[in-house]
Amino acid sequence: MHRDRLQADGYSIFKGLNALESFFETFQFEGKQVLVLTDTNTSTHCYHKLATFLPKHIHHTIADGEANKYLRTCETVWNALSEAHFSRQDIVINLGGGMVCDLGGFSASCYKRGIDFVHIPTSLLAMADASVGGKTGVNLQGFKNQVGAFSNPAAVVLDARFLNTLPSRELRSGYAEVLKHALIADKQRWEHLSALNGIPSEWSEIIADAVATKLYFTENDPKEKGIRKALNFGHTIGHALESHFLDHHPEAHALHGEAVAAGMWCEAWLSKEAGLLNLMEFESISNCLAKIYPKINLSEPEVPAIANWAKQDKKNAANEIRCVLLNAIGDFVMDHPLSIAQVQAALQQYRLHYPSI
Amino acid sequence: MHRDRLQADGYSIFKGLNALESFFETFQFEGKQVLVLTDTNTSTHCYHKLATFLPKHIHHTIADGEANKYLRTCETVWNALSEAHFSRQDIVINLGGGMVCDLGGFSASCYKRGIDFVHIPTSLLAMADASVGGKTGVNLQGFKNQVGAFSNPAAVVLDARFLNTLPSRELRSGYAEVLKHALIADKQRWEHLSALNGIPSEWSEIIADAVATKLYFTENDPKEKGIRKALNFGHTIGHALESHFLDHHPEAHALHGEAVAAGMWCEAWLSKEAGLLNLMEFESISNCLAKIYPKINLSEPEVPAIANWAKQDKKNAANEIRCVLLNAIGDFVMDHPLSIAQVQAALQQYRLHYPSI
Repeated sequence: MHRDRLQADGYSIFKGLNALESFFETFQFEGKQVLVLTDTNTSTHCYHKLATFLPKHIHHTIADGEANKYLRTCETVWNALSEAHFSRQDIVINLGGGMVCDLGGFSASCYKRGIDFVHIPTSLLAMADASVGGKTGVNLQGFKNQVGAFSNPAAVVLDARFLNTLPSRELRSGYAEVLKHALIADKQRWEHLSALNGIPSEWSEIIADAVATKLYFTENDPKEKGIRKALNFGHTIGHALESHFLDHHPEAHALHGEAVAAGMWCEAWLSKEAGLLNLMEFESISNCLAKIYPKINLSEPEVPAIANWAKQDKKNAANEIRCVLLNAIGDFVMDHPLSIAQVQAALQQYRLHYPSI
Repeated sequence: MHRDRLQADGYSIFKGLNALESFFETFQFEGKQVLVLTDTNTSTHCYHKLATFLPKHIHHTIADGEANKYLRTCETVWNALSEAHFSRQDIVINLGGGMVCDLGGFSASCYKRGIDFVHIPTSLLAMADASVGGKTGVNLQGFKNQVGAFSNPAAVVLDARFLNTLPSRELRSGYAEVLKHALIADKQRWEHLSALNGIPSEWSEIIADAVATKLYFTENDPKEKGIRKALNFGHTIGHALESHFLDHHPEAHALHGEAVAAGMWCEAWLSKEAGLLNLMEFESISNCLAKIYPKINLSEPEVPAIANWAKQDKKNAANEIRCVLLNAIGDFVMDHPLSIAQVQAALQQYRLHYPSI
């Protein structure tokens, strides 16, 4: 039992103030070729922080942003691996946010039917969420993560020092997943976080707690047939918003966490309307979110278009929208059926009544 | 225990004279959307044979041939699934040879991170080999199956009636894998098959035996870390030949089994040269192969180019060629290191001394 690690099923998660050092001291790179994958952003801001640690490697950089999270970008990774004759024993290190981890993890999972990969997430979103749980993938014609694989990394390195490089909007976005983990699983943690009246300044412990919650759900249900679905709270409507903005306003799209925060607000409202969540708890959620996340501007005609995207959600069954709702803070229900009209009503409510604080 | 089925780990393999009927009577399609994937070939020759059995479905056809086994073809499948709003509960039926099974299996494995698929192989190669063992994938820039996944089907249907639609060259090609399964695992079966002096006329039992051998190796080692590698006998050099011909003579490329038969001859010769296989058994292999497979014409300058392709094999480690050789008929050694020079010598030997019978 190491204080600097969480033990996941088959791999270690390095955490704490010296996570990078612990990982590179421990991991066996001998005899392996290494490809370090960055995007144009982490290539500039993060790659040099690994300089003293990295073994001999190839550095491959992809264009940053969700709009590049497509198969054509995977092909550049696969070509780089092929040209360097990477074998099944070799390894990819994903240094970046959720996009790099998702795309790099998927690319490694499919190269020669699967080689090892390590996630070194550099954004709060990727640390608290994308790096753990084995989901990898890319977008297809605007559908988020429509093509992907369930595949666990060989290790994850959670080093909060990378957060110093993040714009505050990115930090706020990632924080939505931290809040979500508290909302579905831990009322006490929710009270602690919401009492901060904004985003935290110390991250190490908060990230480790969020990851521990995510591990609990994902390891008990790796393929999302049961309780793992709880992690999709806020995402049915959140993904729909994100897909819509990516499609219609690619230059000014909503960040994932911003969309999820709006989605959580809508789904908390639906939970209240369904008689599950009480008014006081809904107000607590609404106030906490509104202090951190400004309203996303929607025009009335956009509402039905966004609701239609929700029909594409991977968790749906037989063409019916299935959603996670809250029974209470710290407790959820899964597979709650929603009509398109209910999704539209929630979006209208958000449009008209999301608090401005 | 059903006489019309082999039970694999988590799925059934339907076999015997009425395999199609048994499958469609048994399998639960209720509430599922179904996409039937064919290529231009099986669309014409095989699809109508399912007409009386198939539930309501979408029919998607791709261009046939190894030259279309690429990601761009998977994208047509993913787009068809997306447009029809397929969910994780829905299913793909792959009706075709190895290319359709490999590509359709990979497409299904990655769509929304994995939906079910059923293989109905229509070629001998796909029946005896590709449909069982969980390997799926597509080519990348001429590298065979460079991008793929390990993923098992929900069912496999082995119905020898489809073989009536096959050109004899295809039948002969698929038979190479049947011979390989005997060579690595069952001397008695080898003697039975080689005594036929050509290819068999009754297939049901022979296919079921070949699949049982393949299941033994793949279920004991699904991710190819150990004994499963034995199934690559003939494939180190066979794949190199196939890749070379696909790259240089795409209009007159060697069929997979033709290349594997030549690869088995070369690797049997290397086994003899390494002091593993005795001369009498090498002669038995050489004669049996030569009765069925005409020599593939190679020019002398092609030999080093082909040998270089062998360096790309997925089973290699640390840039060294690793090959399966035979200790004896029915017994193998794995991870035997080979130099490029040894591969070249085997190809030269094949070029000059493969018997003409």
